[in-house]
Amino acid sequence: MTTDNHWKHLFAPESVALIGASNTRGSWGHGIMRHLLASPKRKVYPVNPNESEVLGIPAYDSVLNIPEAVDLAVIVVAAPRVPQIMQQCVQKGIKTAVIVSGGFAESGEPELEAEVVKIAREGSIRFIGPNTMGHADTSSGLCTLAWTAQIPPGPVALISQSGNMMHRIIHCGMSLGIGFSKFVSTGNEADLHLEDYLEYMAGDEKTRVITAYIEGLREGRRFLELARKITPNKPIIAIKAGGTTESARAVRSHTAALAGSDAIYTAAFRQSGVIRVDDDDELCDVVTALLYQPLPRSSRIGILTIGGGMGVVAAEAVEREGLEVAHLAPATIEKLNTYLPPRWSHGNPVDMAGISMDEHHLAFSALWTLMEDKNVDAILLQAPLGFSTERLARTFTSEEIEAHHQREGNNLELLHQRVKESGKPVFMVKPSVEFANDPEVSALFRKEELPVYSAPRRAAKVLNHLVWYKRYLDALRENC
Amino acid sequence: MTTDNHWKHLFAPESVALIGASNTRGSWGHGIMRHLLASPKRKVYPVNPNESEVLGIPAYDSVLNIPEAVDLAVIVVAAPRVPQIMQQCVQKGIKTAVIVSGGFAESGEPELEAEVVKIAREGSIRFIGPNTMGHADTSSGLCTLAWTAQIPPGPVALISQSGNMMHRIIHCGMSLGIGFSKFVSTGNEADLHLEDYLEYMAGDEKTRVITAYIEGLREGRRFLELARKITPNKPIIAIKAGGTTESARAVRSHTAALAGSDAIYTAAFRQSGVIRVDDDDELCDVVTALLYQPLPRSSRIGILTIGGGMGVVAAEAVEREGLEVAHLAPATIEKLNTYLPPRWSHGNPVDMAGISMDEHHLAFSALWTLMEDKNVDAILLQAPLGFSTERLARTFTSEEIEAHHQREGNNLELLHQRVKESGKPVFMVKPSVEFANDPEVSALFRKEELPVYSAPRRAAKVLNHLVWYKRYLDALRENC
Repeated sequence: MTTDNHWKHLFAPESVALIGASNTRGSWGHGIMRHLLASPKRKVYPVNPNESEVLGIPAYDSVLNIPEAVDLAVIVVAAPRVPQIMQQCVQKGIKTAVIVSGGFAESGEPELEAEVVKIAREGSIRFIGPNTMGHADTSSGLCTLAWTAQIPPGPVALISQSGNMMHRIIHCGMSLGIGFSKFVSTGNEADLHLEDYLEYMAGDEKTRVITAYIEGLREGRRFLELARKITPNKPIIAIKAGGTTESARAVRSHTAALAGSDAIYTAAFRQSGVIRVDDDDELCDVVTALLYQPLPRSSRIGILTIGGGMGVVAAEAVEREGLEVAHLAPATIEKLNTYLPPRWSHGNPVDMAGISMDEHHLAFSALWTLMEDKNVDAILLQAPLGFSTERLARTFTSEEIEAHHQREGNNLELLHQRVKESGKPVFMVKPSVEFANDPEVSALFRKEELPVYSAPRRAAKVLNHLVWYKRYLDALRENC
Repeated sequence: MTTDNHWKHLFAPESVALIGASNTRGSWGHGIMRHLLASPKRKVYPVNPNESEVLGIPAYDSVLNIPEAVDLAVIVVAAPRVPQIMQQCVQKGIKTAVIVSGGFAESGEPELEAEVVKIAREGSIRFIGPNTMGHADTSSGLCTLAWTAQIPPGPVALISQSGNMMHRIIHCGMSLGIGFSKFVSTGNEADLHLEDYLEYMAGDEKTRVITAYIEGLREGRRFLELARKITPNKPIIAIKAGGTTESARAVRSHTAALAGSDAIYTAAFRQSGVIRVDDDDELCDVVTALLYQPLPRSSRIGILTIGGGMGVVAAEAVEREGLEVAHLAPATIEKLNTYLPPRWSHGNPVDMAGISMDEHHLAFSALWTLMEDKNVDAILLQAPLGFSTERLARTFTSEEIEAHHQREGNNLELLHQRVKESGKPVFMVKPSVEFANDPEVSALFRKEELPVYSAPRRAAKVLNHLVWYKRYLDALRENC
C-alpha cells in the first residue's frame, strides 16, 4: 500500500470503526460518534462489547466482527487496552488509525507507546496520536473531534501539537470568517510526525495557507527543508510555544516533546520563510491578511484617521513594530488640501480631524489619494466607515440611511478593486469598540475582503509580518 | 469665587448655555444639545441667532439675552468667533466654559488661543479646551459630548488628551461592564491642564480609580507630585503616547503639546506609582482587576488549565511577563492526587488533561487547593467553567442543565468569597472564543467580580502590573 493511500484512508476514508463508541452523553466516545455520523459520505461502525447499538447504529463487540472492510480505526479505549485493539486492527487489515486515548509517553508510559508503535509498524498501520484530540477534513466531511462541530470549509490547514490550542485557533478563525481545509491534533506523534502532515498539507489543493502550533519538532532538519520548499508557494504561520524554562518543562509533561532552544527556532523559521506569531489571535490576524490582501512592496505606511489621538497612537504602533510612517509626496498634500477641511493635519498621519457622517466620501477620497502616492506601500485606516443601521438611525431618517448604505457600499467595493489593482494593502482598525462588535459592520468589510483589526498595534504587527515575508520572497527570487 | 465653585460649575452646573446649538442632525451643536437635554437636573439655554428654537427649546441670539444666571457656557462656534463669545460670557458673569471649537494652537493659530486665554483670565473664567470633545459627570448627569450617550455611572475617572481615545476607552470599558464617575477630553489645555483635572478627580468621592491618556504634560513636576500623593489611595493608570519620532510629531499637530522623552516618562511614572499601559484594551484590563480583585502578595502564579497546550502557553506568558510559575508545595501535589484523574500533570501548570462537563467540581476543588498553597500568590485559570445554556443543551437535558447552573453558580460565589478572604486574585482566561463571546457566560463571571481575559499573555501582563503596584505601595510603607 502506498503512502498516498494511507493519507486517503486517514482524511477521506470510505468506512470508519470507532472503538470505544459510547451512548454516554458528554463522553469522548459519544462526541466522536456524533461527529462521524454528521457526514453521509461513509459507513460508520461503532465498536463496544457492552452495547448492542450506539446512537441507533448496531454496535460490534470487536472490529474483527465488522462484515466489511474498514479504512480507518478511531480508538478511544483506556491506554492499556490499546495494544490489543491495534493487533485486532492489523488482523482486520485496517491500515490507518487515530489513537485518541491518552496515558502513554506523556504520562510516563513510554513502553506502552513503544509497544503500540511496534504492532503498527509490523502491521503497516500509520496512525495519528496517541493523545490526540482528533482531526478533520472539511471536503471529505470527516471529523474525529469530540467537541467542536460544523467547521466551515476554507483554504486554511492547521497542524497542532495541542488539542486545546487547535480548538482555540479554529474558534478564533471562525469568529473572523476563516474557513478550514484540514486540521489535525498531532498528539504524541508516536508514528506520524508534524513534518509528515506538513508535507501532506503542502500538496493539498484545497489548502492555500498552512498554520501550526508547535511545542517541539521531532525532525527539525526535515521541517526546515520542507518549509523552504513550501513557503514560496504557500505561507506557513506558526506559533512556537515552550520558549521559557517552565513552559519547556510543561511541554515535556504535555506531549513528551523537547521544546528546544527558542533562539534556534527563531533563526530557523526566519531562514525558511516561516512567519512566527505569538498566539492564536495574531495567527488569525495574519491569516486574514494573507488570504485577502496583497503583500506590501515595502514598509512605508500611510495612516488615515478620524482623530488626532488615533493618528498619534497609530504612528507610534507603526514605528514600534519596525515599520515607517510614510513621508507623503508634496502633490499628495496639495491634493488633500483641495477637499479635506482646512483643520486636517497636513501630513502623515492624515488626521481628518472629525469629519461628520455626511462627509464620509472625504475619507474615501483621501484613501484614493494616499493609494496613488508612490511613497506609500500600505494603508492603515482608522475611521468609522461602515456605520450600522442602528447607529445611523440615531441621527438620520430611513431614506438618508438607505442612501448612506448605498454610497458606502459602492465605495467599499471600489476600495476592494483598488487594493487589487494597486497591490497596496489597506488595513482597517476599529475606531471604537461600539463599531467593533457590530455584526452588520463586520459583514460589510468581510464582503469586500478588508481585514479589520481591534487595535493599531495589532494591525501594524501583521503589516510587519507581511513586509518581512515579501522581503524573504524577493531575496529568494534575486538569488535564483 | 473659589476654585471649588469653578469645579462645581464645570461638572454640576445648574444652568448651561450652548453657544452654537443647532437643529442640523449630525452636527456637533445638535449632538451636544441632545446630551445636555438628557438630564432634567438643569436648565439648558440654546444660543443661535439664526434659530428661534433648538430641539423645541426657545433659542437666544446671544448669552447676554438669557434672562437668568448661567453657570457653564459650552461653545461650538467657528474659532474666529470664540473671542467675542468669551467676552459676552464675561459680561454675562459666566465663570466656566467648555470650548469645543478647534482651529487654535493645534492649527497654527496660537495668537487666537492666547487672545481667548487673556479674555478668560481677565474675566475670571476657567475653561476646558479649546479643541475638546467635551466632558461628563455621571452623578450630576452632565454630558457635553456630541456622540456617545448613556454612559453607565461607576468608580472610574478618565482624563484624556484625545477625544477619540476618550471614546475608545469609554466604549472599551462599557463593553467590560466598567462604569465612569467623570471624564474629560482636555483639548489644547489653554487654561485648565491635565494636572488640574487630576487634582480634582483625586478629591472626588465617587472616583476610586483614575485613568488617563497622555500625549504631553504641561506641568510635569506638578503631575509627579500629585501622583505621588494620589497613588497610595487611588491607583492611576495611564497611556503615554507619542514615544516615537513620528508619533511625537503627530502630537504637536494634534494638541500642540510636546511629547517629551519616553524614557523620562517611564522613569517618572515608576517613581510615582503610576501604572503605565500600552493601549485602551490593556488600560481596561488593569482597571477591571484593580476594581474587583485584591493585589497579589508577590509574583508566584498558580496555573490551572483544562489542557496541556494551554498550560504551556500560560506558563510561557507568565515567564515572559516577568512573573514566576509557582513551585507547588508537596502537600498540594498530594492533595491534587487524591481527586484529579491520574493523567494530570503532577505539577504547575496544573493541567487537568480534559475533565468532562460532569467533573467541573474537580476544577473548583483544584482551585481551592491551589489557593491554600503558601507558594501561590495568584491564580491564572484557563478552563471552560460557566458553560452557557446553549452549549450545555447540545449534550444535556434541561433538568441536568439546571442542576449544572446551580452547582456552578454556587461554586463561583464561593470562589468570590475565597478570593476576598485569601487576598489571592484569580484571573480567568477564556478557554475558547466560543466561550469568549457568550454574554450569558460573561454575566456569570461579572456577577462574581471575576475578571475574564481573552489570552494568557494579557492576563499575565495585568498580574504583573498588580505585582509592581503592590511592591511600590509596600516600599512606600517601609519608608514611612
